[in-house]
Amino acid sequence: MCYNGPMKIDLALDIGGTHMRAAVFPVNQSKPKSQKRISTYANGETSLDRLLNLITDVTPDNASIRVVGIGIPGVIDPESSLIVTAPNLEDWVGVPITKHIEEEIGAPAFLGNDANLAALGEWHFGAGQGHQHLVYLTISTGIGGGVICDGRLLKGNHGMAGELGHVTILPNGPVCSCGQKGHLEALSSGPAIMNYVAEQLNNGRASSLYGEPNPQQISQAAKMGDPLALEAFERAGHYLGLMIANYLMIFNPTIVILGGGVSQAGNLLLDPVRKTVRESVLSEEYLTDLTITQAALGDDAGLYGALVLAHQTFS
Amino acid sequence: MCYNGPMKIDLALDIGGTHMRAAVFPVNQSKPKSQKRISTYANGETSLDRLLNLITDVTPDNASIRVVGIGIPGVIDPESSLIVTAPNLEDWVGVPITKHIEEEIGAPAFLGNDANLAALGEWHFGAGQGHQHLVYLTISTGIGGGVICDGRLLKGNHGMAGELGHVTILPNGPVCSCGQKGHLEALSSGPAIMNYVAEQLNNGRASSLYGEPNPQQISQAAKMGDPLALEAFERAGHYLGLMIANYLMIFNPTIVILGGGVSQAGNLLLDPVRKTVRESVLSEEYLTDLTITQAALGDDAGLYGALVLAHQTFS
Repeated sequence: MCYNGPMKIDLALDIGGTHMRAAVFPVNQSKPKSQKRISTYANGETSLDRLLNLITDVTPDNASIRVVGIGIPGVIDPESSLIVTAPNLEDWVGVPITKHIEEEIGAPAFLGNDANLAALGEWHFGAGQGHQHLVYLTISTGIGGGVICDGRLLKGNHGMAGELGHVTILPNGPVCSCGQKGHLEALSSGPAIMNYVAEQLNNGRASSLYGEPNPQQISQAAKMGDPLALEAFERAGHYLGLMIANYLMIFNPTIVILGGGVSQAGNLLLDPVRKTVRESVLSEEYLTDLTITQAALGDDAGLYGALVLAHQTFS
Repeated sequence: MCYNGPMKIDLALDIGGTHMRAAVFPVNQSKPKSQKRISTYANGETSLDRLLNLITDVTPDNASIRVVGIGIPGVIDPESSLIVTAPNLEDWVGVPITKHIEEEIGAPAFLGNDANLAALGEWHFGAGQGHQHLVYLTISTGIGGGVICDGRLLKGNHGMAGELGHVTILPNGPVCSCGQKGHLEALSSGPAIMNYVAEQLNNGRASSLYGEPNPQQISQAAKMGDPLALEAFERAGHYLGLMIANYLMIFNPTIVILGGGVSQAGNLLLDPVRKTVRESVLSEEYLTDLTITQAALGDDAGLYGALVLAHQTFS
């Protein structure tokens, strides 16, 4: 078909507590035509206004938007498309985001949980291509997840399945961002690693680190052989490994993908993860045909997942 | 169609480490025509011979078997239909059970994991009817499970998903039947409750119980108000509740069904389970439209699940 009208595009949005990102994909293409990232909050503007401006900025002048996919760090009511809870995006709770966007740009818009979408992104375009049974974990400020079971995204009754970081792995352990104790997020996230190091330094542990080092500084110290920094990653990796072994028993996947900033530490985290997983499975068969690997799309996983969400409305 | 030939039946078999059970269902009926239970092992006979005799015994003379569904307490390789691991049925590992049965009775036979089948049974015929997102746990000598996600049984890559009892909930906790530490099975199964009481009695704890009481005796003592017996169920229920809360985060189901002998203790177990679940969820939304309940089919869940497995070959 020859067609000389405006370029048709799909729009992918990934909203975070710190940044929001937008990418424009010409219809049926998986390489973005343009892409932009801005901070979610800035003085004098609402974050919704900032988002609408971002959409205008990133959309080429001659383009017509076909559909919009949006990733949000929170729990979404599938019937109303409203955000139910979002610890890092409180002011969006209850706001009819999709309605605002649809009115502004005149195209249908769909919301999804950001970690679920990152799992979809890695599945369709990243490390999980070709797999039918996939567990994705994003390890950063928090720990989120998404699961592909037999070729379908696990959603649950209210679309709230896959909260793989808010699970108890150490009863009465450290307090989580959500207030519960001993969640995986409270043991293996970036802040969990920082807190452990700060606590040990406070207790007078010898280390090249001092004050309240961030995960990047701890990672660098570990690479230089600092025992406390190494121990901090081993501890985080151990609990992550215990929970991943649980996920093997629960889902029997062929691939476990680790994304998010903390996973950039690579083998510092992955070695203890793999060691604990090997030691903790019920039987060797769970390790047959299993890959445990870093995510391939980095920070773009959520955007690609939002694209998948957008595409699904046409399949 | 009027048909005067032999009565067509489907055969359901549920094999356990202690007993095996068979039931005959006239085609398209869900009420068994006949049913029988025998011990799995007896002097001078192999358990396979005993099973083949059981099939002959339970099948009416004028019947023609259409299909056989079989539940097995172990991990089954979906390609070869061989049992890979079965801690309570070691002598069946690697034996081509379905082939033996098919040759003997001339009808196709299908194997499934017994806890997965019990989940299917409760879903189609028991407490889970009408639900699309269901978590089933059987609490007895061991703890097994089965999950329905969006109207489909969760199987995983090698059909080994749903091992909901062999998951770590207390790192470095009591040793499990599988050798790992701190599995749910090591904290909330029948033997776990017995071991805890025996250990406390050994430590000189005052109680109306003595020696090595079994779960029924502990349950009775608890109903009479014995503090140690009550505490034993509260402890088992607490860890079970912690893990069920995890399963709510992971699967966001509408129903959690507890089957198996230990669940017969009813509110002794269910009250602490519900208390811990309420206290441990990430947000109230996970409790919306959620039922936590006892299984409805009792010991027959596995047989009904084997029937569902048999039926699936005709759907």
